[in-house]
Amino acid sequence: MENGLSIFALGGINEIGKNMYVVQYDDDILVIDCGGKFPDESLLGIDLIIPDLTYLEENREKIRGMLITHGHEDHIGGIPYFLKRLNVPIYATRFTLGLIELKLTEHRLLADTKLIPIDADSELEFGKIGVSFFKVNHSIPDCLGIVFDTPEGKVVHTGDFKFDLTPVNDQHSDIHRMAEIGREGVLVLLSESTNAERPGSTPTESKVGDVIEEAIMKAKRKVFVSTFASNISRVQQVVEAVMKTNRKLALLGRSMVNVVDVAVERGYLHIPDGMLIDAQEVENLAPEKVCILCTGSQGEPMAALARLSNASYRDVQILPEDTVVLAAGPIPGNEKNVSRIIDNLFQLGAVVLYGGSSTGMHVSGHGFQEDLKLMLTLMKPTYFIPIHGEYRMLHQHKSLAVSVGVEPENIFIIQNGDVVDVKHSEARQTRKIPSGDTYVDGIGVGDVGDIILRDRKQLSEDGMVVIVVTLSKRDQKIISGPDTITRGFVFNRDSEELLRETNRLVKKAILNLQSENKYQWNAMKKEIKKAVGQYLFAQTKRKPMILPFIIEV
Amino acid sequence: MENGLSIFALGGINEIGKNMYVVQYDDDILVIDCGGKFPDESLLGIDLIIPDLTYLEENREKIRGMLITHGHEDHIGGIPYFLKRLNVPIYATRFTLGLIELKLTEHRLLADTKLIPIDADSELEFGKIGVSFFKVNHSIPDCLGIVFDTPEGKVVHTGDFKFDLTPVNDQHSDIHRMAEIGREGVLVLLSESTNAERPGSTPTESKVGDVIEEAIMKAKRKVFVSTFASNISRVQQVVEAVMKTNRKLALLGRSMVNVVDVAVERGYLHIPDGMLIDAQEVENLAPEKVCILCTGSQGEPMAALARLSNASYRDVQILPEDTVVLAAGPIPGNEKNVSRIIDNLFQLGAVVLYGGSSTGMHVSGHGFQEDLKLMLTLMKPTYFIPIHGEYRMLHQHKSLAVSVGVEPENIFIIQNGDVVDVKHSEARQTRKIPSGDTYVDGIGVGDVGDIILRDRKQLSEDGMVVIVVTLSKRDQKIISGPDTITRGFVFNRDSEELLRETNRLVKKAILNLQSENKYQWNAMKKEIKKAVGQYLFAQTKRKPMILPFIIEV
Repeated sequence: MENGLSIFALGGINEIGKNMYVVQYDDDILVIDCGGKFPDESLLGIDLIIPDLTYLEENREKIRGMLITHGHEDHIGGIPYFLKRLNVPIYATRFTLGLIELKLTEHRLLADTKLIPIDADSELEFGKIGVSFFKVNHSIPDCLGIVFDTPEGKVVHTGDFKFDLTPVNDQHSDIHRMAEIGREGVLVLLSESTNAERPGSTPTESKVGDVIEEAIMKAKRKVFVSTFASNISRVQQVVEAVMKTNRKLALLGRSMVNVVDVAVERGYLHIPDGMLIDAQEVENLAPEKVCILCTGSQGEPMAALARLSNASYRDVQILPEDTVVLAAGPIPGNEKNVSRIIDNLFQLGAVVLYGGSSTGMHVSGHGFQEDLKLMLTLMKPTYFIPIHGEYRMLHQHKSLAVSVGVEPENIFIIQNGDVVDVKHSEARQTRKIPSGDTYVDGIGVGDVGDIILRDRKQLSEDGMVVIVVTLSKRDQKIISGPDTITRGFVFNRDSEELLRETNRLVKKAILNLQSENKYQWNAMKKEIKKAVGQYLFAQTKRKPMILPFIIEV
Repeated sequence: MENGLSIFALGGINEIGKNMYVVQYDDDILVIDCGGKFPDESLLGIDLIIPDLTYLEENREKIRGMLITHGHEDHIGGIPYFLKRLNVPIYATRFTLGLIELKLTEHRLLADTKLIPIDADSELEFGKIGVSFFKVNHSIPDCLGIVFDTPEGKVVHTGDFKFDLTPVNDQHSDIHRMAEIGREGVLVLLSESTNAERPGSTPTESKVGDVIEEAIMKAKRKVFVSTFASNISRVQQVVEAVMKTNRKLALLGRSMVNVVDVAVERGYLHIPDGMLIDAQEVENLAPEKVCILCTGSQGEPMAALARLSNASYRDVQILPEDTVVLAAGPIPGNEKNVSRIIDNLFQLGAVVLYGGSSTGMHVSGHGFQEDLKLMLTLMKPTYFIPIHGEYRMLHQHKSLAVSVGVEPENIFIIQNGDVVDVKHSEARQTRKIPSGDTYVDGIGVGDVGDIILRDRKQLSEDGMVVIVVTLSKRDQKIISGPDTITRGFVFNRDSEELLRETNRLVKKAILNLQSENKYQWNAMKKEIKKAVGQYLFAQTKRKPMILPFIIEV
């Protein structure tokens, strides 16, 4: 790495997820966030995707710390896997730390990790980099933007944000501090781009509270509200509506219970004494006296709402005329799962209120175009790097930056791994460091690659055919088999003729080769695959994986 | 089946896709539509889903014909598979027949199928059922609603529709005829429910034409417009904008070429002489003189737009400052694929216009709530069966029907297979006939069931482990193996220790059983699966399919 100031992303660019950004000055490296990303359906069997840590592992002695902007999965989900390779102190606000601690406890890493609480007023120093913070508003409490004061100038990372002038629970954006930072002069701004395609300003979170309150007021029987556990502002508004309607509140779903616990304990959520009841108590109370707050608003098949909608939840049932409020919008990709749950809820006879932002049941936590322009205007950066978004969002964010006066040639649309180097206050993007997706599958991190995924894909589409044949060591005569079994291809029972012919072709292939004095197993296997593959494709138009086994005894 | 009038669905209820409805009077069966449905990602390897034809096969001698409302895949996609089992005459309008003929040619069924052209004025008789039609407007030309005149009364099936008072190419809804049918008295109405959740009226198709025209007017270089090939009204509007701007028009994508061909030949689309050019000519013309109409607006990976966006199309290239208009909205489930293409187009430097209905680039072909209420009001049915929709849509459609005066107890929300019997003009839903999904996988129709899909799922997530061991016939001693190979599980090369231990466990399991005088293969296989499964899960937290092979020689 060159001397001076360098900025790059190891995740979060051209994607939503696995956010990880790095600011380095000389031999001091600071890491911002360490997110996970959920795999799409093409990544068969993969549980989570995390950033490629090669560069950081190669420079482990230079890493001074990891700064966390906020506690969403796409910013903290990779931390346990990171810590198993790199033991680095983690700086985060108290609420964010609470969520990180839940994770580290699960992975048995808590005892060995240095967690350092910070707040918006903290000031830190790492070599020649001074670090300070500013409060931003987002859909989770206690979010920070970060200012890196380097000898080259200030680098600002916004974290995830919107401007909400009427937020819940005093989660204000510190616009005055932002203005001050801008006035002092920002060399490079990294700002999030999630909603750069959406015109206007993000509506205030308070609006959702009004809609929830109205729904609970009108409900004749039990009310179920499903939302993101981490959206404590929304949870607070449910609590207040429950208070006004004299109901009791039960929590369903592990993450709802855990996160509410952290939030109450650390003072980010206020629930009146005596309001909370156990799930087991719900059925003992009059239905018009209960509200249930549950996980599963994204249609996750194992979460509380999905199980309630299948009538497979032990303690609590949804009955006709109960009300279900989906106080969340589906994240892109989850639409179908959410729709299926709504269908099931209607079939149970429930009154279902849904529709996401179009019905006021949800507002985004990410700033729309006017919010993004306000941030750019406050910061007045010399250089701008749009981050946290797919390419079209970065592209649109660039247009917004140009519209408020940033010089187009001073805007870098980078890829993960592209390094922006700053020398004499001049930024250039020239180098690349290793970056990419690291797959987590079960315990394994990074051990599943393209070959395994290609095999899984073939197996998933057309199944497989295993053929075993035993040859005599003495004269290479077939003494057992060929035997064929299939899985995921055809019903063996209904396909006797197909399997018989397969065995015949295998035998023929072996005998043919032997008649030409060819006895190499590789040649035999190749010939078997070819003959059987062609035959099965002609018969079925499917291409199962064909695995010949040749045994010699 | 009882005598009298019976109505049921074999597909289309609680789903979008595989539409198939049946009207039977005594021994005369009429089938309405025969749609396909595209599988979701959980149905690994499945190509298409069609309705269960059991009831129709058992009553094949009673089927008088199949009436097709319009030519969309979810109404005609199952026809080739149906015809391979049941040779039934098909009645459809000329444009719809054109699309069916394309399909039958591909499946080599054209010569043996009786295709009968009809129009909105046709009148048919099948036993005691008189059949007539009425024109409806939808996002494909030449759509029909159907009236079944039975001794019990009239049954009306709307087909897919919206009311567009300013349609393109004279595709008017015949509101006067609908009013007349309603005045004559409708006993049962089956009406489609796709947009029953959306308030207001569907915007007119003409609006999209304005947006396309403005985009082409402004474009400085080549313009690519991607839309549904079958939306001939939209294609016509592209043609008109191309005419006004003095450009030439090229068609990319097999279905675009085929469908436009059918539409022009049969008089549903008018393209001025000399406007069409071959794809190969595009690069010879000045970029501001060309427009390209292409398939792939749903992000289909093999369609023209996806290949253009990867720069992997042979004849035509998207260059910086070319314009791409996505004149379509993503169908639910396709959002991610479409977004990926938009990202790639921006990366090529194109001006990309997208956003579906929110930007006027798309309007739906299905009536919103006011359209559905208008249909219900025109028809004034005694009984109402909402069709063509997922459960929540049927539920909302029921509410709409109640709001315009249909008696709630006269509305049947049915499942596929539920039969509504009408006797003495009174309808009751009591019986059920076989229904469900039939999977098409390659050539096989209905031969892939739950077991195969379960195997494919396991294989897709964690791969497989095949273990072969050879025993001596004489004394049951292990004379070869155990040998283990894996696919889709772990890299064999990096997992020597894992495989060695697996083989050791297999050997141990066999020897243990033998020491207890247990020699049955089933017991051995069970024991091997258990021991190896536990070990591999502990080591990897993955559960591959374990396939033990025991050979005796």
